[in-house]
Amino acid sequence: MNFIDIILKKKNKQPLTTEEIYFIVEQINKAPDYQYGALLMAICLNGMDKRETADLTNAMLYSGDIIDLSEIKGIKVDKHSTGGVADTTTLVLAPLAASCGLPVVKMSGRGLGHTGGTLDKLESIPGFNISLTREQAIKQVNNIGVVIMGQTGKLCPADGYLYKLRDVTGTVQSVPLIASSIMSKKLAVGADAIVLDVKCGSGAFMKNIDDARELAKTMVETGKRLDKRITALITDMDQPLGNNIGNTLEVIEAVEILKGGLKGDLYEVSLALGSEMLVLGDIAENTQQAREMLDENIKNGKGLAKFRELIITQGGDPSVLDDYSKFKQPLVSKEIYLEKGFVEAFDTEAVGRASAALGAGRTSYDMPIDYSAGIVLNYRKGDEYDGKKPFAVMYSDDKYKIKDAEEIFVNAVKTGKNRGEKTKPVIQVIR
Amino acid sequence: MNFIDIILKKKNKQPLTTEEIYFIVEQINKAPDYQYGALLMAICLNGMDKRETADLTNAMLYSGDIIDLSEIKGIKVDKHSTGGVADTTTLVLAPLAASCGLPVVKMSGRGLGHTGGTLDKLESIPGFNISLTREQAIKQVNNIGVVIMGQTGKLCPADGYLYKLRDVTGTVQSVPLIASSIMSKKLAVGADAIVLDVKCGSGAFMKNIDDARELAKTMVETGKRLDKRITALITDMDQPLGNNIGNTLEVIEAVEILKGGLKGDLYEVSLALGSEMLVLGDIAENTQQAREMLDENIKNGKGLAKFRELIITQGGDPSVLDDYSKFKQPLVSKEIYLEKGFVEAFDTEAVGRASAALGAGRTSYDMPIDYSAGIVLNYRKGDEYDGKKPFAVMYSDDKYKIKDAEEIFVNAVKTGKNRGEKTKPVIQVIR
Repeated sequence: MNFIDIILKKKNKQPLTTEEIYFIVEQINKAPDYQYGALLMAICLNGMDKRETADLTNAMLYSGDIIDLSEIKGIKVDKHSTGGVADTTTLVLAPLAASCGLPVVKMSGRGLGHTGGTLDKLESIPGFNISLTREQAIKQVNNIGVVIMGQTGKLCPADGYLYKLRDVTGTVQSVPLIASSIMSKKLAVGADAIVLDVKCGSGAFMKNIDDARELAKTMVETGKRLDKRITALITDMDQPLGNNIGNTLEVIEAVEILKGGLKGDLYEVSLALGSEMLVLGDIAENTQQAREMLDENIKNGKGLAKFRELIITQGGDPSVLDDYSKFKQPLVSKEIYLEKGFVEAFDTEAVGRASAALGAGRTSYDMPIDYSAGIVLNYRKGDEYDGKKPFAVMYSDDKYKIKDAEEIFVNAVKTGKNRGEKTKPVIQVIR
Repeated sequence: MNFIDIILKKKNKQPLTTEEIYFIVEQINKAPDYQYGALLMAICLNGMDKRETADLTNAMLYSGDIIDLSEIKGIKVDKHSTGGVADTTTLVLAPLAASCGLPVVKMSGRGLGHTGGTLDKLESIPGFNISLTREQAIKQVNNIGVVIMGQTGKLCPADGYLYKLRDVTGTVQSVPLIASSIMSKKLAVGADAIVLDVKCGSGAFMKNIDDARELAKTMVETGKRLDKRITALITDMDQPLGNNIGNTLEVIEAVEILKGGLKGDLYEVSLALGSEMLVLGDIAENTQQAREMLDENIKNGKGLAKFRELIITQGGDPSVLDDYSKFKQPLVSKEIYLEKGFVEAFDTEAVGRASAALGAGRTSYDMPIDYSAGIVLNYRKGDEYDGKKPFAVMYSDDKYKIKDAEEIFVNAVKTGKNRGEKTKPVIQVIR
């Protein structure tokens, strides 16, 4: 098999065979980078069909370790979000779904750029340890039903190579490449079933609904071809999902939901995702029943109790749940006022960047994080803002960071005369 | 300026600015190869407009030396063929046009793959020296009016880089990339005017008339934008242009034309190209007059005399013109018979490969060449072949090479029941 012939085939809009796709993945670090640069661009511009996408997913999956979770009883349902701002569903869902009897093994990542990461949020809880071995994780899930941790093993090294190369060759934006990258990593962590949260809007990778739908459908089709139970939700990212942006702040918002005191978009999306998880995991018969189970376990406190159990088991200080002052506190804060009017639009990505500028995020993986930094929003899209109360409050360790972040933030929110329509948090479900 | 942004722009089908195109060329050997791989593929698939193509031509032109021919009086008209089989027009044209008063500085190349090279053909003349300095060339042209030589100086190193990379990234076939590559090299050799011979058919880079026409038009437009007089001929390459394929054999065929004893397609195309050269060079007022001048100088022997003068001046043995046995002779030959019928089609590229297999060509630049090797065709498309005489004769130093070549050749020619139409050698003129 010849790499140039494969490039030419894709250049001429022909589908690649399964063997050719495996060859592409096998040749990584053998064939030169420039051939991958050309091939990736040809895939971006001429696409891949569903079969090719599933083949690429599988080839990348088998390029590295695959975590064996078979020692855990029950159907392991994973959840994956394509990344957004104030997207704290994992912290609500993992303990809540576990409290309903679903075994939850969640391998999460760190924040980068405008999006936060579950591991960073959890590490804002003093003492919380995210570094577990596979054996420890399995033991913990069989014990308390839930674990949230960093990845172990060398998962999908082929995806690692292609992901980095896409970043520097202008070939990031491609549905089959994004879908196969996400799906190979999800399958490598040993999930039997997957609930996908495909974000759509100004804070998401997919800016419009057509692209988001295509990505969601491609991933669902890929999962089915690889014999996985799978559902995708398309959810709104034209504004931050929760009202709190930043690590400690997002933990607090998740806890408030588990305490039953907070509804809103984050609650809605968490319960929608959780319902799909319980159905795929054969815990509930349908999403209505699932939703009632989840709501019941908020009301009766079982969800919060499970979160407490999770924190204790992984070495964290559970007293933060009762007393938020036990979290590291920010040194400075500032109330942000905007022009009064209806909240017309958020540049959600810029809001995420403002939070990162406060210290809550990082632009490279070796940057330290300020857990207490972030933004609390008091208004959402369609709300009328009268200018009397602060639109948002910013927290940081450094007043100069607040200055930078404020400049980003005020340009990221548009208030004006049009009320517009309130967006629904869950746009579509694709099964 | 950022390379990734430029890739993304072309990926999104936007035209690049002049500054961006110069940046691409300047970054060669600074930006990584994989970014060029991706960019070249984006250009292949999304194209470049005429202005971008002219900018790329200019940027590559100025990446290296530009030969100054201003010491030669008169308009320097260059001729360039996109490459074919049995395409010996340069050997006819250069002395013939020079004999009409046009100063001819022809920098030629070597053969590779299925196409022959003018330098190899000339070196089949014992003693002929193709390595001249710029100063020697200028002196010779001012003296005898013609020089045919290898390239001097470091011309278009940017094109050299991109050309090599295209070869290994499946990005050869692209009109703006082919056009800018050819045009930058032609402009670098100091031509004031250019006659292009764009080959079309089974032995050419451009297999169909639409592609050939697009390439021809793009190059003519590029030349005009860069203030050059320029004309393109689209000529047929659905069969070898001459009847002789191979270095010595092609020299002999060119000499036969100059002696006035041979007409046919090679003669027709040579005179059509030559006429355009004389018009662009202000030697003739129109192509009809030009053609009469060229024909006259065949009849009166001035063309052949100029070729003799050229050979002598460049150190070659002119007695080959009178006695072809002075050329190196092949050791073995074989008459090739085919099924009788009308000659329906040639796979011209395969015929070229058959000649190369006999020893007449090379597949890498360091391979030696057997000057005497090659094929003489006795029939052309549309002819009726009765099977009594050999269809072709093969020459080589090695009977096993003949065996290989014969296998390629018999599959490359189709005889059958359809006479079909004889193709015209000159398909279209684009001014």
